[in-house]
Amino acid sequence: MAGVIQLKTRPYIRGFGSVAGKKEHEGPLRDTFDIIKTDVSLGQDSWEDAESLLQQNALRAALQRAGLRESDPELIFAGDLLNQCTAAGYAMRGFDVPFAGVYGACSTMALSGILASLAVDGGYANVAAAVTSSHFCSAERQFRKPLEYGGQRPQTAQWTATGAGCLLFGNEGKPTDPRAVQVIFGKVRDLGVTDENNMGAAMAPAACDTIGRFLQETRTSPEDYDLILTGDLGAVGTPLLYELMRREYGVELSAVHKDCGLLLYDRGRQDVHAGGSGCGCSAIVLCGSILPALCTGKLRRVLFVATGALLSPTRVLQGESIPGIAHGILLTGGQP
Amino acid sequence: MAGVIQLKTRPYIRGFGSVAGKKEHEGPLRDTFDIIKTDVSLGQDSWEDAESLLQQNALRAALQRAGLRESDPELIFAGDLLNQCTAAGYAMRGFDVPFAGVYGACSTMALSGILASLAVDGGYANVAAAVTSSHFCSAERQFRKPLEYGGQRPQTAQWTATGAGCLLFGNEGKPTDPRAVQVIFGKVRDLGVTDENNMGAAMAPAACDTIGRFLQETRTSPEDYDLILTGDLGAVGTPLLYELMRREYGVELSAVHKDCGLLLYDRGRQDVHAGGSGCGCSAIVLCGSILPALCTGKLRRVLFVATGALLSPTRVLQGESIPGIAHGILLTGGQP
Repeated sequence: MAGVIQLKTRPYIRGFGSVAGKKEHEGPLRDTFDIIKTDVSLGQDSWEDAESLLQQNALRAALQRAGLRESDPELIFAGDLLNQCTAAGYAMRGFDVPFAGVYGACSTMALSGILASLAVDGGYANVAAAVTSSHFCSAERQFRKPLEYGGQRPQTAQWTATGAGCLLFGNEGKPTDPRAVQVIFGKVRDLGVTDENNMGAAMAPAACDTIGRFLQETRTSPEDYDLILTGDLGAVGTPLLYELMRREYGVELSAVHKDCGLLLYDRGRQDVHAGGSGCGCSAIVLCGSILPALCTGKLRRVLFVATGALLSPTRVLQGESIPGIAHGILLTGGQP
Repeated sequence: MAGVIQLKTRPYIRGFGSVAGKKEHEGPLRDTFDIIKTDVSLGQDSWEDAESLLQQNALRAALQRAGLRESDPELIFAGDLLNQCTAAGYAMRGFDVPFAGVYGACSTMALSGILASLAVDGGYANVAAAVTSSHFCSAERQFRKPLEYGGQRPQTAQWTATGAGCLLFGNEGKPTDPRAVQVIFGKVRDLGVTDENNMGAAMAPAACDTIGRFLQETRTSPEDYDLILTGDLGAVGTPLLYELMRREYGVELSAVHKDCGLLLYDRGRQDVHAGGSGCGCSAIVLCGSILPALCTGKLRRVLFVATGALLSPTRVLQGESIPGIAHGILLTGGQP
């Protein structure tokens, strides 16, 4: 066991929801999100409150799509980038549902999704939710510089997406619902990157390890998938992933691979440098674009591998490198 | 479903390990820990590195007790109090094992334990580990004041334990191994406590909710247990829990209840004010004292409910209250 876990019941993704901010709405995926919030504060007193509200909105959008009530989820796995996973913890005050906090940095959509799908597959919940978010303002202040400082961002830097996504797994579903088939937990990988403005490089080795192990254990090749989708490697991490995959596994990934961080924004026009990042990045690309395509049969087999840089500003100031991790879920399309 | 989850296979606790610091070694449980670290830095350059080393030591101690190798765990659930769960993320660089980060504040021993036991029960791993830690120096600096500031601590404050614990769940075990029988995920509860030096009061409502739901759903009474053990309610939170249990559920808990925060130190002698706290507090009391008693049959049925205050210094500065959560595991003794 260990590596790729086969889900015996192939849980249904009964619902999914996405909430996106202004910059995300101005990008190429503008028409794919369930809810748009052009006010960065969402009318709240703090960015942290705004981010909690993003999570609540995503969960409610997913429930609505699934035709479920707020009391139907029996378990919620949620997390985010904020210290103490504050966005999730405070968001869950609004729901009277058992809650398990997870931390996987930007890999949280996959990590929470794995755990929610296992909870359903194991028979521990009929409906389980996975929720995550990021918010440009709360994240940048915490991880790098106060926004008011106006620091110049190097070209390797990525733009933390403002948005939230939710997946609702169930042991029952419609024929058109996408399903979770296999999952793989990531291992911590650290090749010594110390630049907090180069998350793509810090995460590429973890993405390589997870995708490589997945292909090897399942004896499949990239061409067996319609899409291998990473979370937020961006313009720096993506070619590094290709290079590592060639070197470590002899696999050419570029033909079927896309990265949410490169899909979310128009890099030529939106000044996001190396692309999007944050838990919200892969969450809203998955929930906004990919799952609908799985519902209609436009996509049939998608390996979703969300990547996370376990970046600690404290450890970086101490001269430490940045460990990466990547968790994966194989999703298949419904029968349209 | 939702509330109490019955573990079909009752996973074995094949091994457990505890590492404690100097102050913990000077307390009444001094002889119960596997490893004592009297040097607060563990010979490392930073407290964060020291805390990661605590986790690695606890995992190795548990493996040794179980007679397992480092390659045997197929999945590790780990977390801690540090921002970005740094102690866990960096500790796991030393293990080539799939890793899922969790965040439950001081409830992490139970949260990670629940997930590891479910992973084994569901057939997703033959051996799964749950690891957590806290370190007085890294936690106090992050959550309250720099140690050098020498701020006076109010009497409601608790002392963050320096220590780490590990539980190793397996689908096979010896007849004397304790077993996990039922688990319950907590719900976020927040009655409006805003004092970051009164964690006990912030957590008591969550403990009441989890214990109350557990007793109600299983139709059991406190006298059906040898021990109901909370994590770190301390001298302030414990009487609040009793009061809430009487008022909300009409249940008298005091006869079978103990709190790890009150067991770990000698409050008369050790100047810890309201008692111990931190993920490490309940972890080393459970792994040091309770599990050995379950192995020998001295204890037979223990409901372990670790409590967590989802305290965010940022949110407290913004005037927000502190949500609490409590996760529970019913453990039974082996056949001695």
